[in-house]
Amino acid sequence: MHDLSGSPAHGGNLTWAASLAGCSPFAILDFSASINPLGPPKSAIAAIHSALKALPHYPDPSYQTLRQAIAAEHNFADLGLDADWILPGNGCAELLTWAGRDLADLSATYLLTPAFGDYQRALNAFGATIVNCPLSLASPDLSLSPFFHRPVPAAGLLLNNPHNPSGCLFSVETIGQLLDHFKLVVIDEAFMDFLWPQQQQSLLGIIQDYPNVVILRSLTKFYSLPGLRLGFAVAHPDRLRQWQQWRDPWAVNVLAEAAAIAVLSDRPFQQQTWEWLEEARSQLFQGLAALPGLHPLPSTGNFLLVRSSYSVVSLQQQLLQQHQILIRDCHSFPELGDQYFRVAVRTHPDNQRLLHGLADIVSSYVL
Amino acid sequence: MHDLSGSPAHGGNLTWAASLAGCSPFAILDFSASINPLGPPKSAIAAIHSALKALPHYPDPSYQTLRQAIAAEHNFADLGLDADWILPGNGCAELLTWAGRDLADLSATYLLTPAFGDYQRALNAFGATIVNCPLSLASPDLSLSPFFHRPVPAAGLLLNNPHNPSGCLFSVETIGQLLDHFKLVVIDEAFMDFLWPQQQQSLLGIIQDYPNVVILRSLTKFYSLPGLRLGFAVAHPDRLRQWQQWRDPWAVNVLAEAAAIAVLSDRPFQQQTWEWLEEARSQLFQGLAALPGLHPLPSTGNFLLVRSSYSVVSLQQQLLQQHQILIRDCHSFPELGDQYFRVAVRTHPDNQRLLHGLADIVSSYVL
Repeated sequence: MHDLSGSPAHGGNLTWAASLAGCSPFAILDFSASINPLGPPKSAIAAIHSALKALPHYPDPSYQTLRQAIAAEHNFADLGLDADWILPGNGCAELLTWAGRDLADLSATYLLTPAFGDYQRALNAFGATIVNCPLSLASPDLSLSPFFHRPVPAAGLLLNNPHNPSGCLFSVETIGQLLDHFKLVVIDEAFMDFLWPQQQQSLLGIIQDYPNVVILRSLTKFYSLPGLRLGFAVAHPDRLRQWQQWRDPWAVNVLAEAAAIAVLSDRPFQQQTWEWLEEARSQLFQGLAALPGLHPLPSTGNFLLVRSSYSVVSLQQQLLQQHQILIRDCHSFPELGDQYFRVAVRTHPDNQRLLHGLADIVSSYVL
Repeated sequence: MHDLSGSPAHGGNLTWAASLAGCSPFAILDFSASINPLGPPKSAIAAIHSALKALPHYPDPSYQTLRQAIAAEHNFADLGLDADWILPGNGCAELLTWAGRDLADLSATYLLTPAFGDYQRALNAFGATIVNCPLSLASPDLSLSPFFHRPVPAAGLLLNNPHNPSGCLFSVETIGQLLDHFKLVVIDEAFMDFLWPQQQQSLLGIIQDYPNVVILRSLTKFYSLPGLRLGFAVAHPDRLRQWQQWRDPWAVNVLAEAAAIAVLSDRPFQQQTWEWLEEARSQLFQGLAALPGLHPLPSTGNFLLVRSSYSVVSLQQQLLQQHQILIRDCHSFPELGDQYFRVAVRTHPDNQRLLHGLADIVSSYVL
């Protein structure tokens, strides 16, 4: 069902990369998926071990314990919210499907582009009308978007913050100005956890006043558990009750549930991640900027978008074949084409391997 | 989100039962969920352990290895099918959602009742028109159904085989006669694995000629992994490609994928299950039939539907409070009301505990 002739539409398809590199999928150094290299936390693995005894039982369809753990971690009591504002999902992508269904009911959905490829899938799944709104990568300013100053009250808006793949962050104040312009605003905050708490710009703090807002959060990127699938939506309880009637009752399996509860309160892992990212991203940025023909964009996420003077198809292929390193081409972001690639920020030694590999290849190119 | 004031709409909600019994959920002897008591197989647990290293990677969105394992186990090559006829899902219930979407496009869906409560959810999710077709429990004969002799070419049909909760089995020949009567026929074969291979009546053997048929299969009941969520659909590749565009790309997590691949070829576990079930079901049936006022129905599944001369609400409550045993009331099957309950077939000692508990309670009743 998946076209193996070209690069995969979604990041992280190591099977394809391994066949090109001629090695095992586990031998690939994967910069294509923006996953925290410090994880999974030991607390997640321990929780999975303990939860094996629950496999012969159905998950609690109300996911009460999990929702309470999420509410506690995000200080819902202080925000005037309760656990009914939370719906756990089988990864953020599963919840995006139901957000897509709500958006498809509206006259149009304004989509900030370049955008994560799965947005298109979720919107197309229910026949939404999409209005692409390009973000200038040279100056990624939301207020330059066509919808910013003109309300479109019958339409929806879908964007992510921090923005993927550029890594730029929009302030709560900026997005807040948009919330009354649309019938429904879906904000994917899948990478918000990677910012220091005091730097985060989540809408969680104001959502209690906006029944027309949905926030999507992922636990798989920060905690390095994409194979386990876990995300959650925060939205008005009426909307989430509707979604729960649409989907099956047991969307999150018991091992993912247990791991989530454990990692949400894993303060040492969180602290370690914030400290690592600040330094590693800065070093990787400088290393990339120092290579001729490569121009990384400033990022608040755990990834860097790089403008390349060379064909990214060739660069990607050479990195795989000569160094078993996978970078993310941007073909699933049609606006970016062959001139951009994205790399995750990884550990210092991994980042050095990438920089050496890139230096090796670009030194053979003539600009 | 889940009403905790009454008994849960879906079986297996041990949290509710434990609060009524005044014990830990793990102390409940659960006859409400029809799960194989011999599992999970050791092969599943070993596979999960080995797959923990894959957690930091996204699942392969094509699920190629898993689909090939399913195809091999079910002799697809001999049946003229290939792995493109398979779509793995996050439990059978997730796939039911997409079957419900297809059925909702038709003029009506004929639903054999009593029916698993989640059918209603999946059909309502997309606004399907439902025509209930009661199966007589006294003589569960499909050919007595109103749709059997009269084609309804614009409509769909949804039924399960073996039938839950009655446990009766319809032959391939009987169902085969219906396939040209409907635009779409969805057969839930979630309990088919529990029959000896030579007794199974799966449509897998004839589906290659029917692009209007969907077969749903579960791996969680036979292999005792409902907490892990795993099922698959078999249908024409065009239909499954459509479903894959509707849902997110990574519906099955890597641990469920690994467990499934391991258990599908676990011959000793399969053999042991078939041997256990034949004997244990027969003994439990006889034990129930010997109790005054209780009338079990003959069943081909790993569960027995029991007609009760006593109020099932009272019986269920007393069993919980006095014996920490949970039976399945049939309130989610509105046709059955308070006069029927369902019990899973469990191990010999567990079944004896149930029989003793029931004997203890009914001896205090005056018929």
